[in-house]
Amino acid sequence: MSFASDNQSGASPAVLNALMQEFSRNGTSYGTDEATKRAEDKLRDVFDCDLVAYFVTSGTAANCLALSALGDPWGAVLCHHQAHLLRDESTAPEFLTNGMRLVPVAPFAARLDADAVAAQIAAMPDDRPHNIRPQVLSLAQSSENGQVYTPVEVRALCRVAHDAGLRVHMDGARFANAVAHLGCHPADISVRAGVDVLCLGATKNGAVAAEAVIFFDRTLAREFPERMKRSGHLLSKGRFLGTQFSAWLHDDHWLDLARHANEKAQALATALTSINGVRIAMPPEANEVFAVLPRQVCAQLGAAGIGFAEWYGDAILPDKIELEREILVRFVTSFASNETGVAAVTLAGGVLSR
Amino acid sequence: MSFASDNQSGASPAVLNALMQEFSRNGTSYGTDEATKRAEDKLRDVFDCDLVAYFVTSGTAANCLALSALGDPWGAVLCHHQAHLLRDESTAPEFLTNGMRLVPVAPFAARLDADAVAAQIAAMPDDRPHNIRPQVLSLAQSSENGQVYTPVEVRALCRVAHDAGLRVHMDGARFANAVAHLGCHPADISVRAGVDVLCLGATKNGAVAAEAVIFFDRTLAREFPERMKRSGHLLSKGRFLGTQFSAWLHDDHWLDLARHANEKAQALATALTSINGVRIAMPPEANEVFAVLPRQVCAQLGAAGIGFAEWYGDAILPDKIELEREILVRFVTSFASNETGVAAVTLAGGVLSR
Amino acid sequence: MSFASDNQSGASPAVLNALMQEFSRNGTSYGTDEATKRAEDKLRDVFDCDLVAYFVTSGTAANCLALSALGDPWGAVLCHHQAHLLRDESTAPEFLTNGMRLVPVAPFAARLDADAVAAQIAAMPDDRPHNIRPQVLSLAQSSENGQVYTPVEVRALCRVAHDAGLRVHMDGARFANAVAHLGCHPADISVRAGVDVLCLGATKNGAVAAEAVIFFDRTLAREFPERMKRSGHLLSKGRFLGTQFSAWLHDDHWLDLARHANEKAQALATALTSINGVRIAMPPEANEVFAVLPRQVCAQLGAAGIGFAEWYGDAILPDKIELEREILVRFVTSFASNETGVAAVTLAGGVLSR
Amino acid sequence: MSFASDNQSGASPAVLNALMQEFSRNGTSYGTDEATKRAEDKLRDVFDCDLVAYFVTSGTAANCLALSALGDPWGAVLCHHQAHLLRDESTAPEFLTNGMRLVPVAPFAARLDADAVAAQIAAMPDDRPHNIRPQVLSLAQSSENGQVYTPVEVRALCRVAHDAGLRVHMDGARFANAVAHLGCHPADISVRAGVDVLCLGATKNGAVAAEAVIFFDRTLAREFPERMKRSGHLLSKGRFLGTQFSAWLHDDHWLDLARHANEKAQALATALTSINGVRIAMPPEANEVFAVLPRQVCAQLGAAGIGFAEWYGDAILPDKIELEREILVRFVTSFASNETGVAAVTLAGGVLSR
Repeated sequence: MSFASDNQSGASPAVLNALMQEFSRNGTSYGTDEATKRAEDKLRDVFDCDLVAYFVTSGTAANCLALSALGDPWGAVLCHHQAHLLRDESTAPEFLTNGMRLVPVAPFAARLDADAVAAQIAAMPDDRPHNIRPQVLSLAQSSENGQVYTPVEVRALCRVAHDAGLRVHMDGARFANAVAHLGCHPADISVRAGVDVLCLGATKNGAVAAEAVIFFDRTLAREFPERMKRSGHLLSKGRFLGTQFSAWLHDDHWLDLARHANEKAQALATALTSINGVRIAMPPEANEVFAVLPRQVCAQLGAAGIGFAEWYGDAILPDKIELEREILVRFVTSFASNETGVAAVTLAGGVLSR
Repeated sequence: MSFASDNQSGASPAVLNALMQEFSRNGTSYGTDEATKRAEDKLRDVFDCDLVAYFVTSGTAANCLALSALGDPWGAVLCHHQAHLLRDESTAPEFLTNGMRLVPVAPFAARLDADAVAAQIAAMPDDRPHNIRPQVLSLAQSSENGQVYTPVEVRALCRVAHDAGLRVHMDGARFANAVAHLGCHPADISVRAGVDVLCLGATKNGAVAAEAVIFFDRTLAREFPERMKRSGHLLSKGRFLGTQFSAWLHDDHWLDLARHANEKAQALATALTSINGVRIAMPPEANEVFAVLPRQVCAQLGAAGIGFAEWYGDAILPDKIELEREILVRFVTSFASNETGVAAVTLAGGVLSR
Repeated sequence: MSFASDNQSGASPAVLNALMQEFSRNGTSYGTDEATKRAEDKLRDVFDCDLVAYFVTSGTAANCLALSALGDPWGAVLCHHQAHLLRDESTAPEFLTNGMRLVPVAPFAARLDADAVAAQIAAMPDDRPHNIRPQVLSLAQSSENGQVYTPVEVRALCRVAHDAGLRVHMDGARFANAVAHLGCHPADISVRAGVDVLCLGATKNGAVAAEAVIFFDRTLAREFPERMKRSGHLLSKGRFLGTQFSAWLHDDHWLDLARHANEKAQALATALTSINGVRIAMPPEANEVFAVLPRQVCAQLGAAGIGFAEWYGDAILPDKIELEREILVRFVTSFASNETGVAAVTLAGGVLSR
Repeated sequence: MSFASDNQSGASPAVLNALMQEFSRNGTSYGTDEATKRAEDKLRDVFDCDLVAYFVTSGTAANCLALSALGDPWGAVLCHHQAHLLRDESTAPEFLTNGMRLVPVAPFAARLDADAVAAQIAAMPDDRPHNIRPQVLSLAQSSENGQVYTPVEVRALCRVAHDAGLRVHMDGARFANAVAHLGCHPADISVRAGVDVLCLGATKNGAVAAEAVIFFDRTLAREFPERMKRSGHLLSKGRFLGTQFSAWLHDDHWLDLARHANEKAQALATALTSINGVRIAMPPEANEVFAVLPRQVCAQLGAAGIGFAEWYGDAILPDKIELEREILVRFVTSFASNETGVAAVTLAGGVLSR
């Protein structure tokens, strides 16, 4: 009954079975195997375009190595003020990019918008080599606050970035949930909207540990094997990664898993709103529910064995929460969430609202 | 029938089954789970001492992050002139240690010995901060050339290193094969001999992707989680690693797997020596066979579908090989090697020797 | 008649003469010379305490290498939102510290205060190794906006930092001007107030190129020679630096130079306020005058050959300036500023106010 | 009477006077000043070609930043097995290039030759991204052992490098001495011979602290200001560097200074050979004399107040020295060496040979 994070779920049986099968036999090493080639081909089908993909085991590695391929060590990456990259990955971005600067954009706003990005770019001084120039815009889809950028929004953000000479990186740890929410083609919020590199995460949505770094522009990928190798991210049994992705993408399995997670988030939001004093902070769009809970409710849900995480207070405007009495929390559902968890919240809600 | 590398084998059914089971359910993230704790406890049993262990997915990461914990970015690491670290991992050591220098020792020798290490340390000038001072000795066990250091040899190497203020790192990608060969206690060639940090590899010997960085001195491990995190090596589903190690270590499974590989290497060496003109370059001790093949034999074995790798010519003294006619090659056996491969060599040998 | 920056002034004759004399003869290299020893001794007198000092040629190097000695590559440095370190030194902090994160504090405020620092520390999450923990507080004295922290203010800031386990770094590019303004003992706003490392700049105040990194706690300095060497900042003719500092500190010459600069800033502020529509943005305390100029005045002063720099708009609150009509500019005086420059402004003022 | 190093000499009066004059007035900052422009123009005259030059204060910075502009962080730099870069600059090359590997060439040989370089390139495996590929050849002119490469030799080395896709870097800390020895045009052993980047040192030959990084191919220089800035090597009073170079290059002053140093080296070699048991190890060509001294002579010269440095024993073949009785030492002359030093050696020689 934990909604603490989707990285606490197990893995999809389809993915596990594929691993069982693949590892019952020999295969070539360092990503030269058939499963990896199949995965890359499958990504070409899914995104309906040419692309180059590399596979790594963690989102930190995927995102930061991707950034290192998009800018110089003396450049800046614009990102949401609550970006996972900025808040939760230690100094991995600085380390793996050899020193790029992350610049937070849009304080207090739930999502990035093109105007805020344009304003930030315009505000950054340009006296080279003294000042740091923006070189990359990094978006999370779905976003840090469980919000989903529409195709129109992504296009607008990419246009602003490209017009100023920036490349666009998308942190797609929960990209599947965004596609499932929008019901759009995966390309509509990535390559067709202007995204240069998508880090597509499977780990939180049914894989064991697998993230793809997808370059829609081949020239950007040229040095990526070297970057992977020297950061220790080129697995000898690379087919561990390719196999997961092949199975995960097969027959829209990844979207089925994501749809399930999203539905559970909606059900959870409904259950939460039945509790006295609970407010949904932002309409849940993907598989995360951000809610303002009276501190007492928070304690009671915890006592009932329901897991969730306290969230950064500055995710919402100060006037939206009474910090003495209330607390902002995050619930995350996953492909593995079942009725029990939601039912427990509903039950707790009934008790608490009496 | 490939003997190209043990990283081309699949995984042991015991390890795969454990993964199936673990990932059929939820678990906590980032290595805080039960399977990871069990793996660390099990390592304490195996090495019969207190220790701290962290788990990563690649040997490159394990070795280089371990080195970064043992010295300063302005220090040197002494290693065999053919160390995998030096030859086959791009500039990962420099990158992940933030600039340490690898210094090759013992050119033309098949293995490091205490005198060569002592001589190298003595030869390095010590005008600080201009000169680079040795801070770490890195040994591979079994070695780059398939040789196994005895407990007496490891102790002597560690003593020379410690006397000069160096820490000792052991690259144990094939540590299991060394233990299996010696029939000793795992501690005899590690903690009891003076090794400070052992990178114990499971990947080449039955796991999918799992390496343990084992600190026998807890104080050296203090910053390791930060080092893992910021290099992208802290997996969210860290139990992927702990689970493999738990299963791999259980009931001496790891040693059974290694013994099998070693036996197949002996059988392979026998089969090879039956071929006219083939010489074993060094007596095989673990799971690797280095042999000098007439170039013609080399081609014929290749044509028979037998995989192996051309090896660095400088692994043996120039007078041990006629490079125009001959070639130094490496065959590697694994837990998954079966009769077929060896039989194919025997068969080829019969034909070739007629 | 340029007030664009104090780094455009020449050097004090006393400093130049000392260099002439020193370099007319031989001397030992890499900072082992007599002049360097004398400079360090002189610093002990000036700050009335034991200390270790190293000398480098640029403020960027001094500040960033100092930070690297005070924290880990995975730590954060809190600094004013307009800190020179943050705005004007490319990614030198990230590079020279191997990845520390600069965290801006106190947006819209002209200077740091203890409460803002305490609040920032409290607001930073502490889930290691995921979150970045603050390890250093960096103050500029005099500040980014020409403000001078009093001994009481520095003490309060250091107390807040030390209570939370942070070290305190002071960027003293204009430290002399602060001492001259306060008329206090140099120790009162540094070692006695709790500062751990002071980067004392001479370059902007009479030297050619000389910055001292002063460690009031010897244990923090242990690895500094290595850090200097491997970043290329250990000069072979290190006495170039020691000689400048010896002459600069001799007989309070440094404070005489700073007093002159400060007086010229006051005179300049008076001259500026005589111009219609000009407002002093913050009371000048050291050798910088920040003023809001009507855009037309700005053009006319420029046409009169008076140099100054447009400043970051966000140095003052949005309601303090009408950006369409007005512009925030910075004038800097130096030891070399003479009557002519101020007189030119006064003259221009007379004309403009008619 | 010290021959320990040419970095212990003072500075040429012409250089000092130029500094006095320049720093008696204001000037623009960060290398945008007139003196710096004049220095760059003067270099175009000296090398008779288009070029871009940047100026820094140390040879470590010049060489390592130059290397960073010539290759990738995962590339290798081939250099002489005794290169100053490899032996005496801590891990500055690794740090400032973000991880390039230095690969020593030609053990036991006094200088690099084209065949040894070609053999090394051929011997390096090329399995990307695992293996490190050579990207730069670094030559020292004059060399580590006081040898001077002729135009023919430099051309041959550059051809071998370029044919294999490497760039050529020249460490010219004593380039002036090489030109003075050869009596050639400076371009003959640099741009016309194929050198891509020359680090021209003035510090050891009459300047206070000044090194030029000269790019004969402008495209290689594109990011150099950023590299300088973020390593702290962009001086605010950059005219300190330009001024020295302008004065140093003026009217062949640099070559006059070098000729003087070279002549003193010849005189010193003559004086040394008059001592019983002393052998010149290699014919002195520039301003360094390497000699094998009986240990007793060594002590006696030291007692007579004559300074010199013990040298790396492996600079010459083991059979050229009896290490128990003898010692290899280096004497360095400079523009400031006078009769006294040589006379003292001659005098000591007379006494010792009686």
